[in-house]
Amino acid sequence: MGTAREPALNEIKLAMKSTNDLFNTEVFGKRNFDALDLIYTSDARILPPGSPIISGRPAIKRFWSELVSSARSAVLTSIDVMPAGDGVVEIGRATLTLEGESAPQMEVKYVVYWRQEDGRWKWHVDIWNQDS
Amino acid sequence: MGTAREPALNEIKLAMKSTNDLFNTEVFGKRNFDALDLIYTSDARILPPGSPIISGRPAIKRFWSELVSSARSAVLTSIDVMPAGDGVVEIGRATLTLEGESAPQMEVKYVVYWRQEDGRWKWHVDIWNQDS
Repeated sequence: MGTAREPALNEIKLAMKSTNDLFNTEVFGKRNFDALDLIYTSDARILPPGSPIISGRPAIKRFWSELVSSARSAVLTSIDVMPAGDGVVEIGRATLTLEGESAPQMEVKYVVYWRQEDGRWKWHVDIWNQDS
Repeated sequence: MGTAREPALNEIKLAMKSTNDLFNTEVFGKRNFDALDLIYTSDARILPPGSPIISGRPAIKRFWSELVSSARSAVLTSIDVMPAGDGVVEIGRATLTLEGESAPQMEVKYVVYWRQEDGRWKWHVDIWNQDS
């Protein structure tokens, strides 16, 4: 049961890792916000703490461009990847390192609903909160 | 396209509404925590703000029994319901009314990944945060 699908799932996990890594290296590392076109679907929604729901990639790009100015890196780690029809539900954890001499870190956990768009695996629904 | 699936989706939405309503009427209204057996899958996980991930229904029941003592109602409203293979991804909003003379309200948004268990639609992954 399920073993025939394992290679496909492993490929999806690799594709997901490449998207997640882009978020750290391009968006946080280089402040290249056009990389968000490769990360979020065009009609994606994010549900940030302390903010109403934000819909659509242009609004999502504005959100991150404002937030990233105070952060240095965002390292994402998958905890669980659940195939869900044409999509995937992922539970994960992110460590955000903020700017500043003491480089404080923020621990975040998240749920992302992934969908394919233009042959890439992207974030379609993205919600997170802090452990403390 | 898709019209053949509409009746099935409407049935699922009704089943989801009955689960969501149980959360308000039984868990919050009557402090009947055994109703959580009908709401969460046995291996569900919740990701509450200000807490690490909580796994499994027994731990989830402990979490809600501690929190509900200070709350009176939790009215859930679906914003979007996305079929996802054997499951459903839901975006929603909850209004929590807390105990106290002034009955303060808390606005919460959430994402739930639903799965079927024992013929019922239940919450398998549940994460939320506050708008402000």
